[in-house]
Amino acid sequence: MTLKEYVFRQIAKTNKKKYENYVVTRIIHLVNDLSLKFVTQQCVTNENGKWYLSDLYFPQLNIFIEVDEVHHLKNEELDKIRDADFEVATGGRTIRICVSQDKNNEYKEFSIEKINIQIDEVVLDIKKQYNIIKKQENFIPWDIENEYDPNTWIEQGYIDVADKVAFRTIVDACRCMGLNYNGYYRAGAKHPYEENTVIWFPKLYENKNWNNSYDDIEHKIVTKNKTNFKKHVESVLNDKFKRRIVFAHVKDNLGDIKYRFRGVFELSIEETNETNGVVWKRVNKRANTYSYKNIPTL
Amino acid sequence: MTLKEYVFRQIAKTNKKKYENYVVTRIIHLVNDLSLKFVTQQCVTNENGKWYLSDLYFPQLNIFIEVDEVHHLKNEELDKIRDADFEVATGGRTIRICVSQDKNNEYKEFSIEKINIQIDEVVLDIKKQYNIIKKQENFIPWDIENEYDPNTWIEQGYIDVADKVAFRTIVDACRCMGLNYNGYYRAGAKHPYEENTVIWFPKLYENKNWNNSYDDIEHKIVTKNKTNFKKHVESVLNDKFKRRIVFAHVKDNLGDIKYRFRGVFELSIEETNETNGVVWKRVNKRANTYSYKNIPTL
Repeated sequence: MTLKEYVFRQIAKTNKKKYENYVVTRIIHLVNDLSLKFVTQQCVTNENGKWYLSDLYFPQLNIFIEVDEVHHLKNEELDKIRDADFEVATGGRTIRICVSQDKNNEYKEFSIEKINIQIDEVVLDIKKQYNIIKKQENFIPWDIENEYDPNTWIEQGYIDVADKVAFRTIVDACRCMGLNYNGYYRAGAKHPYEENTVIWFPKLYENKNWNNSYDDIEHKIVTKNKTNFKKHVESVLNDKFKRRIVFAHVKDNLGDIKYRFRGVFELSIEETNETNGVVWKRVNKRANTYSYKNIPTL
Repeated sequence: MTLKEYVFRQIAKTNKKKYENYVVTRIIHLVNDLSLKFVTQQCVTNENGKWYLSDLYFPQLNIFIEVDEVHHLKNEELDKIRDADFEVATGGRTIRICVSQDKNNEYKEFSIEKINIQIDEVVLDIKKQYNIIKKQENFIPWDIENEYDPNTWIEQGYIDVADKVAFRTIVDACRCMGLNYNGYYRAGAKHPYEENTVIWFPKLYENKNWNNSYDDIEHKIVTKNKTNFKKHVESVLNDKFKRRIVFAHVKDNLGDIKYRFRGVFELSIEETNETNGVVWKRVNKRANTYSYKNIPTL
């Protein structure tokens, strides 16, 4: 996907709210910087575990822009997007653009001039924040091609959850871990450099064979096999591979499959049992990356 | 309708083409002048009598902006919008934004940077043109409230087709002709100041009782009564009211009914007969306006 395609598809999605398209396009056109990544209608979970769609999200700045009220997802909407790629709002900043107000219980629409003043302030704010980040030593400008290229992260020497890395394919995720693709890895591959570690590509939501879930507050993965529940719990407890580098299988907000890095997890032996299922706890937000060009002997 | 409502509704319509919303919003946000009227998806007829939807139209500048190819309306689309308010492109200028090109029969997408450069040039062009017009003596900045107010045009002393005047109601159109509403005028009202003249509100398209049409090249109106064709032709020929000030009943591009000033017409006695129907020819693009505050005796 080219940058053009990305920008146009993101903007084309801004039609969930009456004023969303106007506000989002005004911000994007006035900020006018193609190296600043933006995502519209990003699925977000906040610190209280509530899910919503953010109207406009700048991953590099961790800024969420909302046009009036946040659109909290109803249960039926959540069911439909169980496989969605989500962001955790913790640590992010939310800026609200008000298109109307409830003053003394009297609903009042704001004039377009008043809305434009707010937007123009947000634009200045974003430009200022982005200029600060641009001056940082480890700043990598957004480049849609590099973003999905494992070499970008191999050069960095690590990937961090904060880098918001997602790969287009399992092949790319494996390469980033030093493993050149040489077979068919459906759910996981043995890590070529790290002991007892699997590079894992789970669906962190209920699917055909698994009743999986992700707790984004405690950062725990729970997996339950639908047909061989007990057997699966036993086999994991007996297995020596108790460490997993997780690239969750998600659908991004344009509907494309991605493998989103979620950190390094370890089996929680205390919590894993025939009641809970298999429980994995995040132990590190960062994983080392390795060149895949020196293929190790498996 | 407030200015905000107008702007948001116009922008919300820009979704007919893949890149339309991006291009239109970029132009509007970067021109950034709320006194410059714009219309999206304006129905236009060109000098060859071909109909199309213009992506972005600036009535004060008579500039039409097209994203790539012009969307010529097919017959079935035309049937659906027979009652549409249209513009005649003659005299207007069309600027094209190319998002792709066919070079040596090879289809090539333009980069977003290349598209932005084109848009930014258009923005400068529009600002320049608008600044020239703003300096003209008779310049009236666009004001959504004044635009539909008959007093605006009464003060001017006339209305001209070039002013692109449309009223929200028959009442407002009559007021502008010096006639305060004192009854129910379905299709027309006697002009209070001008002899043998009717203020007329015809549907210039086929409807229940009439087979009407408008020739926008010759500027002729043809009306044919569906049930009493001959009787209607006779009665018009015998009638002394052979002059009509025409406010056509149209649906504007937001779906609202308007009465669009189309000029002063006179009965073409030579062309009106039991074959052609009743033919009216435009004799003046301008009509005088009168204060409705001195109600004349009818």
